[in-house]
Amino acid sequence: MNTDAGGGRPAPALAVVGATGAVGTVLLPILSQRADVWGEIRLIASARSAGRVLGVRGADTEVMALTEDAFDGFGPGDVVIFLTPREVSARWVPVVTARGCVAVDRSGAFRMDPEVPLVVPEINPTAARVRPRGVVAGPGCATLSMIGAVGALHAEYGLAALSVSSYQAASAAGRAGVDVLRKQLALVAGTALGEQPGDVRRAVGEETGPFPAPLVLNVVPWVGDLAEDGWSSEELSLRAETRRLLALPELPVAVTCVRVPVVTGHSMTVHARFEREVSAATAHELLAAAPGVVLVDDPATGEFPTPADAVGTDPVWVGRVRRSLDDVRSLEFFVSGDNLRKGAALNAAQIAELVAAEL
Amino acid sequence: MNTDAGGGRPAPALAVVGATGAVGTVLLPILSQRADVWGEIRLIASARSAGRVLGVRGADTEVMALTEDAFDGFGPGDVVIFLTPREVSARWVPVVTARGCVAVDRSGAFRMDPEVPLVVPEINPTAARVRPRGVVAGPGCATLSMIGAVGALHAEYGLAALSVSSYQAASAAGRAGVDVLRKQLALVAGTALGEQPGDVRRAVGEETGPFPAPLVLNVVPWVGDLAEDGWSSEELSLRAETRRLLALPELPVAVTCVRVPVVTGHSMTVHARFEREVSAATAHELLAAAPGVVLVDDPATGEFPTPADAVGTDPVWVGRVRRSLDDVRSLEFFVSGDNLRKGAALNAAQIAELVAAEL
Repeated sequence: MNTDAGGGRPAPALAVVGATGAVGTVLLPILSQRADVWGEIRLIASARSAGRVLGVRGADTEVMALTEDAFDGFGPGDVVIFLTPREVSARWVPVVTARGCVAVDRSGAFRMDPEVPLVVPEINPTAARVRPRGVVAGPGCATLSMIGAVGALHAEYGLAALSVSSYQAASAAGRAGVDVLRKQLALVAGTALGEQPGDVRRAVGEETGPFPAPLVLNVVPWVGDLAEDGWSSEELSLRAETRRLLALPELPVAVTCVRVPVVTGHSMTVHARFEREVSAATAHELLAAAPGVVLVDDPATGEFPTPADAVGTDPVWVGRVRRSLDDVRSLEFFVSGDNLRKGAALNAAQIAELVAAEL
Repeated sequence: MNTDAGGGRPAPALAVVGATGAVGTVLLPILSQRADVWGEIRLIASARSAGRVLGVRGADTEVMALTEDAFDGFGPGDVVIFLTPREVSARWVPVVTARGCVAVDRSGAFRMDPEVPLVVPEINPTAARVRPRGVVAGPGCATLSMIGAVGALHAEYGLAALSVSSYQAASAAGRAGVDVLRKQLALVAGTALGEQPGDVRRAVGEETGPFPAPLVLNVVPWVGDLAEDGWSSEELSLRAETRRLLALPELPVAVTCVRVPVVTGHSMTVHARFEREVSAATAHELLAAAPGVVLVDDPATGEFPTPADAVGTDPVWVGRVRRSLDDVRSLEFFVSGDNLRKGAALNAAQIAELVAAEL
């Protein structure tokens, strides 16, 4: 922790590990825009990106290589955000917690550890206070795209079951995902592809990057790794994270995750069944008042959420809110949110601020 | 009906109204490929397209303008397929049924008429035999993309509830839908669009064609017209058609329809709850044996349905078949089917053949 020459409680230092990646690139402007609660902000990345100079809070900041030395001077009261792959987080989070820092990790490395709170500040902020391992985890971007809306409705009606289908963007697979989608767009623009069997697949060839099939002019019903019984890791994570966040360990969650040719912005259809009778009018009021959520729901004037509108914005957009025709206890709705902002960088920043406020 | 010089039962004549549209263009090769049960095949379209010469069964055929005279010589025992918008069907179907022809209509004009059977030959073929008004209707392309799989599972397990989300292609909105998607693809190829708030919407401008928002690098949670309480006509149709086809008038159907930037090929996630316990293994066997369905389900080797693979093929592709983790009576799966073939032209041809076989 940096000393504060003025006396009193010094501002905590913040380190960002993974500062040059797809999510880090989004986090730095967010740190510049939000209330400045930090002392030093240190940027850390892989050795390959070390030495780059990035702007944060208006100051040029040189990126340090991820080594033990990068955390010199950090200790109790300081916070380290990890925007790194699971393996990197698993290796380096213990290094900073051993120094007494609090780690905020957005990878899957610690999300299911019962001694690591899983936190979305709009949903369960107090959970961040109890962190036996010195780690707070954020959920995945798919969960974050719908949990704000689902949580607001759950608080009123009591959630009984969820059925969700996703429309997930390329950038959640990192810069490589965006690059391959853009390459594929260039291949199909100006052609008549997409009308004959396999023509898109032949044109794209093996250039599918992190995706298991061509993404342009296509949708790909697979996100993540293969888990048991035909489930994808993304589907199981969304179910497990939703249960943890809402403290509903037995909640039935049916989910199918699908990748769509969108650069940034995850969307989801949600069919939610509650314990109590719902009304569309009250649901609209609850969603309009929910933190981190913006209600966009007037189909008569073309108002509904789309990822192209939600990209680059902080809240999750919610619309198409209807009471189910066959069940007075169920609602249908559609959400779109920026998978790099609330789905990753913003949620991490919010958790770090929450931790800093009570350190 | 044409006379058959060889004596015996003459082959029925077939007229195709709307022969030059997006669906008609797909139907003519289908008629050339399938068993030839027809006498004369007459092609009819709007006055604007009259005089064009199209090939069907290897013969050049001049397109006639849609007038009363176009049906000269047609009478009892002949069949007229309508691939026309609702208003055109509503106006012209009665003209041909007054002559004693059977009309096969794929528009929404007659789908909910209790005196008009709604038919998918793999699901309810015998329903086509009772047609008090001389009309047989086919359902919409969204329903057709999943009903084959749902019907096969229903026959074994007894369907109790459906929750479906769609990923619908541009060509279901006709040639104008495809054209505008291709224009938008050209606008975004080679750019960095899709990463800043509203940048795709600004680039596309008002060029959204039949869609209420830009489709490229986007998904649009709206298909059809505005119905009551925030529902779209497409969502209500899918529910009503599914209930009629399966003869389950009270079936709970939760549905959200979404347009995606795919040229041709509707996809859907399906969460289906049944009366009886299901097993994934048996579900796989049922789907593999179901007519009009092909099972593509081996995620370990990248095998799952996508619209880019299903386009131009007859069957609906089904994969990602899993038993729900929280309910032994529920299955999750994903389907992709060509919305112009089984979703429109092929289903109409199959109904016409069914009718011809028992005339």
